Amino acid sequence: MRILLTNDDGIYAPGLRALRKELLELGSVTVVAPATEQSAAGHSVTLLTPLLVNEVYEDDGTTFVGWAVEGRPADCVKLALLELLREPPDVIVSGMNAGSNAGINVLYSGTVAAAIEGAFYRHTAIAVSLEYDKKIYDFPTGARYARKVIEQILAHPSPPGSLFNVNLPVLERGPIKGVKVLPQNISPYQEKFDRRVNPRGRTYFWTSPEFHCPEPHPDTDVTALAEGYITVTPLQFDLTAHSRLQQLRQWEWKV
Amino acid sequence: MRILLTNDDGIYAPGLRALRKELLELGSVTVVAPATEQSAAGHSVTLLTPLLVNEVYEDDGTTFVGWAVEGRPADCVKLALLELLREPPDVIVSGMNAGSNAGINVLYSGTVAAAIEGAFYRHTAIAVSLEYDKKIYDFPTGARYARKVIEQILAHPSPPGSLFNVNLPVLERGPIKGVKVLPQNISPYQEKFDRRVNPRGRTYFWTSPEFHCPEPHPDTDVTALAEGYITVTPLQFDLTAHSRLQQLRQWEWKV
Repeated sequence: MRILLTNDDGIYAPGLRALRKELLELGSVTVVAPATEQSAAGHSVTLLTPLLVNEVYEDDGTTFVGWAVEGRPADCVKLALLELLREPPDVIVSGMNAGSNAGINVLYSGTVAAAIEGAFYRHTAIAVSLEYDKKIYDFPTGARYARKVIEQILAHPSPPGSLFNVNLPVLERGPIKGVKVLPQNISPYQEKFDRRVNPRGRTYFWTSPEFHCPEPHPDTDVTALAEGYITVTPLQFDLTAHSRLQQLRQWEWKV
Repeated sequence: MRILLTNDDGIYAPGLRALRKELLELGSVTVVAPATEQSAAGHSVTLLTPLLVNEVYEDDGTTFVGWAVEGRPADCVKLALLELLREPPDVIVSGMNAGSNAGINVLYSGTVAAAIEGAFYRHTAIAVSLEYDKKIYDFPTGARYARKVIEQILAHPSPPGSLFNVNLPVLERGPIKGVKVLPQNISPYQEKFDRRVNPRGRTYFWTSPEFHCPEPHPDTDVTALAEGYITVTPLQFDLTAHSRLQQLRQWEWKV
């Protein structure tokens, strides 16, 4: 099996390294990932600057890992599929992200966007993220769980462009309770900015780390993750509000 | 009516200026927009750098326009709603973008992401984009059409968080044929990279402007836009593939 591995934390991130090690048990792994951290890059792509690429090797200097790209996660997947990989991958894996990508974070996530980009090209793609508490991550343990989930996904035939968003709960909170298949939570989040003034009198804001969903829907990724479950959410990228089409068509539109 | 206006081409972009002029006929307009071009920013947000803001005035130096933000389109909407605006807006308008945002471009678009961010906060939000041909844009004419469409949307009550993606066809191709309410095209696109080598022997790639959808579905935004219609697509931000939930739940999941 040929696996394309990418992420948004950058090619040298420990979450990617741990996941690569596990995926090597399943087949050949080629990494095409951003050269630098691209957290919250969403589905941005690079139009105005060139995408420099660099071959990356393991510390022994001889084992080929893949390519570092001076671009966004979605750029990496495009470039891998159109230019860098000799053969198309059987699956695209994105992660393992440092931090969960559930709820509306799915839309901010570069990890998920990379998977969606793969689905644009009709590949099966799996985003994997690890929730954290106090910035402590046990990536090797997380990657072992992630591999088990990925194996189970790949054991079933999926139509072209199938997308899976996998989140692992905080590992330090106790044993994982199981795997739940759930929709994305779409309840509103609460967040804050920290307002400051620079020495030249100019106002600036820092995005606060306090970003949370006070009332998540009970049967969603956010809730189950908080309860200690691994969550699997099948995704798609049609943003049309199909339920509203008929109503809007009845409006009298004039040019 | 209080209107929050943003975009992804930057606060000084002519498309925003033209749209602001038209929206001022409908109510008060406050602009909170990126200081610099943010095309294809998707739903990225800024976590690692501070969001500097600057008050912007019309050329007379006294008429307040709004704030330029050193950030992404989605940052602008967050900051406007949480910090900058004294009162919540009645509607958020994003645009008018130089270039259409139809098909899978909806996911790359900073213009649409800004509108989605507004919908996260339960506001009605409208993204407006103008298709171009040979980089010629008649923004004042486009903005007049956009205003008419926005007026018609606002004439109907919409539930909180209602999202509309409005695209105007190339104006130079002939008279606009009408308004069509259609879903987003999700057929695959074809694109290319231009591979080069720099003087130091390092490979880099430019994203090619050749990005097109060879086989768009006939009843979608992409097709109607090419035929000369204004398209209106109601959007939503739940990426769950609801049709697959039941099937995935039947798989035997093990930790």
